[in-house]
Amino acid sequence: MIDKLEYTNKHELIFLDQTLLPLKEKYLKTKSYKDVAEAIQKLRIRGAPLIGIAAAYGVVMGVHHYDTDNRKNFDIHFYKVTETLRTSRPTAKNLFYALDRMVKVFEENIEKDFVEIEDLLLREADAIFDEDAEMCKRIGVNGSELIGEKMTILTHCNAGELATGGIGTALGIIYTARDQGKDIFVYADETRPLLQGSRLTAYELAENEIDFDIIIDSMAANLMKDGIIDCVIVGADRIASNGDVVNKVGSYSLAVNCAFHKIPFYVAAPGSTIDFDIAEGKDIEIEERSPEEITKVYGEKITSQDFSVLNPAFDLVPHELVTAIITEYKVHYPPYNFGGLKHMFQSYIQTQRADDNENDN
Amino acid sequence: MIDKLEYTNKHELIFLDQTLLPLKEKYLKTKSYKDVAEAIQKLRIRGAPLIGIAAAYGVVMGVHHYDTDNRKNFDIHFYKVTETLRTSRPTAKNLFYALDRMVKVFEENIEKDFVEIEDLLLREADAIFDEDAEMCKRIGVNGSELIGEKMTILTHCNAGELATGGIGTALGIIYTARDQGKDIFVYADETRPLLQGSRLTAYELAENEIDFDIIIDSMAANLMKDGIIDCVIVGADRIASNGDVVNKVGSYSLAVNCAFHKIPFYVAAPGSTIDFDIAEGKDIEIEERSPEEITKVYGEKITSQDFSVLNPAFDLVPHELVTAIITEYKVHYPPYNFGGLKHMFQSYIQTQRADDNENDN
Repeated sequence: MIDKLEYTNKHELIFLDQTLLPLKEKYLKTKSYKDVAEAIQKLRIRGAPLIGIAAAYGVVMGVHHYDTDNRKNFDIHFYKVTETLRTSRPTAKNLFYALDRMVKVFEENIEKDFVEIEDLLLREADAIFDEDAEMCKRIGVNGSELIGEKMTILTHCNAGELATGGIGTALGIIYTARDQGKDIFVYADETRPLLQGSRLTAYELAENEIDFDIIIDSMAANLMKDGIIDCVIVGADRIASNGDVVNKVGSYSLAVNCAFHKIPFYVAAPGSTIDFDIAEGKDIEIEERSPEEITKVYGEKITSQDFSVLNPAFDLVPHELVTAIITEYKVHYPPYNFGGLKHMFQSYIQTQRADDNENDN
Repeated sequence: MIDKLEYTNKHELIFLDQTLLPLKEKYLKTKSYKDVAEAIQKLRIRGAPLIGIAAAYGVVMGVHHYDTDNRKNFDIHFYKVTETLRTSRPTAKNLFYALDRMVKVFEENIEKDFVEIEDLLLREADAIFDEDAEMCKRIGVNGSELIGEKMTILTHCNAGELATGGIGTALGIIYTARDQGKDIFVYADETRPLLQGSRLTAYELAENEIDFDIIIDSMAANLMKDGIIDCVIVGADRIASNGDVVNKVGSYSLAVNCAFHKIPFYVAAPGSTIDFDIAEGKDIEIEERSPEEITKVYGEKITSQDFSVLNPAFDLVPHELVTAIITEYKVHYPPYNFGGLKHMFQSYIQTQRADDNENDN
């Protein structure tokens, strides 16, 4: 397993700078929650689940390295820390999920002393990390049922070890199938503009000794036409109640090509990715990002900065094009009905709503 | 019109280095046919028709700057020049077309003196340039019939001024429609790996004051889903007798998405692009290019050079997915039957076959 993130007993966060992979394997170390927020902003730490984990440890550091005897200052500082981390990126659902859990622990134990609260927060962050790793394992096992003895799988962006606390979601299925003795070949599309495929997925497939080729994104269709691809597996950033999936831009084009070539299009994601408050994907806002992601690579200009660019970070795959959704609970088939999962997430949702109401006041 | 290439009365070729656009507008000047071959190899001059034009002038320079009174040496040198240019790139059909024309002029006038032959070769090169410009104009007029008063057009790679002796093929249609007073907006997909879209098409659309946005290649499908794209127009590197089209990799994925979203997929190319000797596209060999085109940008590493990469330069769009093919003769609709054109190209084909037979001996 790649050491992507570790919280030390000296209350430091050590993490792999993912913007430099695979050209440099550089670890950064910090005691500052502000550095964690900045690392998330600048994509040094990325992948929705991993962002959540990092933010949770950020809260622990923010509390530990704050020196006060004043209870009121302590409370004010706590919310400053969580808000700084919460605004580090706008769309990663797991970030809010993790921070909501940290706030809940804080508020349920507000009568306890500082040291005890800090210890409970650390336990919660560790739990978020551990649960994420366990969730990945279960997605891997559930998804591996869909993988035959010898398969060629195409994946988009990075939904692997580098994106989660464990073995990953889409890539977790691939690792699990390989460990079951299955013969797997992967096509990793490069995933413009930020090249999470050719940089991060390729890096971790190499580390895990899975055979693969990198292709440009628009090459996938040709491999499908030639009968080379058995299935596509991607992750998800958010899933609507009807099974519409929001994921890294380029997912929709792959899903259309899967439908055209009659190839399964699978989505692997934890239950916490499902947004029970959103009926259809069209109601999910798609983040527009900087033109420089397309006109520069590693900070170097590759075309004129004067040209107009359209650069949404995500796109929407309608549920009709999704063959199955793999969560830690099971393989879900259409028509998608996540009623059972909603029940499991009910307590979390209630907490969230209570918070929202407070914020409205 | 962009000054992309000029042959001077001092027998020099001046050309725009397309590998540096749009960041630098640098003109190179040479008297050496070897420099022309190298410029084609290294994509400083690119676009099938423009390569043919450059190679034709390369032949003229090769003859002019060779100093001999010996007839036998002159003949040997001539074929050395044409072969050097012929092997500069393997798939550009117009390169062979132009060189075959130059060889034909040489062989039909072999009894004449050196100065006279050189003059005839220069006239032939000028004719190839002029005919190409005229062909672009006609494609523009023919194709503009397909363009409504207000349209949003998506194009792939660069099939414009920078690729031809005139206004271009796919982009020539756009310029012609705009000059007719039509309201045109263009989406230029960046065209990984070599970014002919975000570098070259964007550059010449800006020069021609056509409004456009650059998008990543896999974004096109989303614009189609949202009803934003009225049609796709691309060029072609070779067209089989049944209408199957070989063009820049990524064209097939666009054609599938056009079919799925019921959007016209148009191909604009000169009649000389049609290969009457090839019945179906599957018999056209697809060139595999260097992995470094994907793992480096402008010579700088963007991922590990150890990773395995699949990088074909072209892909095949089956005729079933091609709504119409626009040549300088007319708009061709399915079922594609280029019998009439074959007749027009008959004399050229006969010359070619005679050459092939000679080479076999």
